[in-house]
Amino acid sequence: MGARHVRIVGTGLLGTSIGLALRAHGVDVSLADVSPTSAALAADMGAGRLAGPQDAPDLVVVAAPPDVVADVVRRELATYPQAVVTDVASVKQSIARALADDVNRDRYVGSHPMAGRERSGAVAARSDLFEGRTWVVCGQSDLVEWLAQTCGARVTHLDAAAHDEAVAAVSHVPQLAASLVAAQLRELPEEAVALSGQGIRDVTRIAASDPMLWTQILAGNAQAVRPIVERMIDELGDVRDALGSLDDPDAGAARIPGPRAVLAQTIARGQDGHARIPGKHGGAPTTYATIAVVIPDEPGALGRLFTHAGETGVSIEDIRIEHDSAVNAGLLELDVMPARVSKLSDALRAHGWQSHVLDLPST
Amino acid sequence: MGARHVRIVGTGLLGTSIGLALRAHGVDVSLADVSPTSAALAADMGAGRLAGPQDAPDLVVVAAPPDVVADVVRRELATYPQAVVTDVASVKQSIARALADDVNRDRYVGSHPMAGRERSGAVAARSDLFEGRTWVVCGQSDLVEWLAQTCGARVTHLDAAAHDEAVAAVSHVPQLAASLVAAQLRELPEEAVALSGQGIRDVTRIAASDPMLWTQILAGNAQAVRPIVERMIDELGDVRDALGSLDDPDAGAARIPGPRAVLAQTIARGQDGHARIPGKHGGAPTTYATIAVVIPDEPGALGRLFTHAGETGVSIEDIRIEHDSAVNAGLLELDVMPARVSKLSDALRAHGWQSHVLDLPST
Repeated sequence: MGARHVRIVGTGLLGTSIGLALRAHGVDVSLADVSPTSAALAADMGAGRLAGPQDAPDLVVVAAPPDVVADVVRRELATYPQAVVTDVASVKQSIARALADDVNRDRYVGSHPMAGRERSGAVAARSDLFEGRTWVVCGQSDLVEWLAQTCGARVTHLDAAAHDEAVAAVSHVPQLAASLVAAQLRELPEEAVALSGQGIRDVTRIAASDPMLWTQILAGNAQAVRPIVERMIDELGDVRDALGSLDDPDAGAARIPGPRAVLAQTIARGQDGHARIPGKHGGAPTTYATIAVVIPDEPGALGRLFTHAGETGVSIEDIRIEHDSAVNAGLLELDVMPARVSKLSDALRAHGWQSHVLDLPST
Repeated sequence: MGARHVRIVGTGLLGTSIGLALRAHGVDVSLADVSPTSAALAADMGAGRLAGPQDAPDLVVVAAPPDVVADVVRRELATYPQAVVTDVASVKQSIARALADDVNRDRYVGSHPMAGRERSGAVAARSDLFEGRTWVVCGQSDLVEWLAQTCGARVTHLDAAAHDEAVAAVSHVPQLAASLVAAQLRELPEEAVALSGQGIRDVTRIAASDPMLWTQILAGNAQAVRPIVERMIDELGDVRDALGSLDDPDAGAARIPGPRAVLAQTIARGQDGHARIPGKHGGAPTTYATIAVVIPDEPGALGRLFTHAGETGVSIEDIRIEHDSAVNAGLLELDVMPARVSKLSDALRAHGWQSHVLDLPST
């Protein structure tokens, strides 16, 4: 594609990570931020040089907070009449609407890399943040596709409305649910919180995210988020009514579905939705066999285990650690291809590990 | 404690796992189930012998489905007048209430091991299911404590009401939330579901659980679950109203908190609740430093990585794999003590791994 000059506006987690990735490919990157300190920090980290008055970028990447993106895009379109302008905000329709009357809007193509961290700022940036991630591009632009691919991402095309509806369901509503579930722990007695297991840990992991950022995301995607929230209120209301009418002898006969059917359907619908989430490598979830190994809380225990596992040459497809808050020992689950499971398990047992092959998948 | 005879009624996941754990300690275990096939399967797996007419158990463990536990406990109390009877159901108050008029109720002490799996049945059982887990005992019984400890669990005492309120918040409501979030994916276009990242995967992992079992659990704990569901409906309603009044110029002035403050508070309260969940080893969460390593999708890649990591002698405290549905490469995060992070990272880089030290914790 020849030499490029990419201007990055906003040197937080995403902007700085993009700069680091582009610099690793020798691209000329200039950096701008409303905070001079933030821009200087990103430059010091190797994300590019500070922007100068003579810059004539081919591509401008706006990585500003969601609530100012539209204004910044408009300004950049006017300032650099030769440049394509994109942004990386996690909502797209509200920005496109805000730019609808802009004479330069043909040079704007919005995008959204599906990557992030609970931590924020240039200091959390890394050059491989987008490695292997999906990068949604809303429109056609060779330059924006080149940007995504140079950062190591895979391009998916969606229009702004389809994108916003998708992220409402797969990202924004899950964030709200995680936050609301976690919020219920605030007043709980200490000994009750101590019963927390892996289930609630997983459900609430993303509840640690930044309130200011999420206020902007939710406000920016209100149109797509609201109907799903509305539906969940209705469904939670059905659950509440079912829980309240269990002891009503007429409830089962009077209403179809009766209260127990409402509860069962709630869980069963969740199973159906969960089954649609693609597996690790895309497409249908692969069925692995699982080995559970008891890990003592000793220095180097995991290292020793994986040294022994590595010696077998068996490819480990996935790892899960089950935590326990009460004691130090943990349980590690290793997923491998079913045909390889005995080889690995036998080898681990020979090394003295408490290793158990879990039930083999039935399909 | 001398020789014991434990009778287990119900040879599903929990009953069979208890049998396997007790047999590993040489305890005499007899097994009963309404399904003769299920009992025979558990006996074949080594969980104990089939129950006989001359049995005189010291302890009866009722591991039947939640909705029949109270009836089975009542029958066992009457049949074995020398025995202490416990159960392992995940709700406790409704069972205690159902037994309130039982003349033998003094010999009943309910309990709840905080362990389980998404898979069910004897075939999913394992002797170390309770290893390192918390086992709640509702009352005083040396025999029930002995049972929990022999299974490798740690005993916590809670009364039935405190137990039920705790599990409503840390287990039952998170299950409902996970199921409802997952259910929203049912009608989503394929390309939208394809944007699912680690966030929704974590939030919905437990949505794969069994509807029949969860109907019984939710119905059995309706009294404690309902007020939390009610509160979440109110809070979701506030979010819906906030999302609907963002464009209302009077909303901010007319209402305090205004719509953006409602959204920010929702996320911030989630942060507060999430911060209360104890860390891996109990007590305050330990602050580890994190190393991110890019893992190629090659046979033995993880094994090689951990062989190299193991050689450093640095203790790895936690592991996370970030999945990506679009490509095969994964990103592995390793948590280690901050003082050890450079040693491990340098060693991995020397072996050619793309390894990055993430921002060190600020506290």
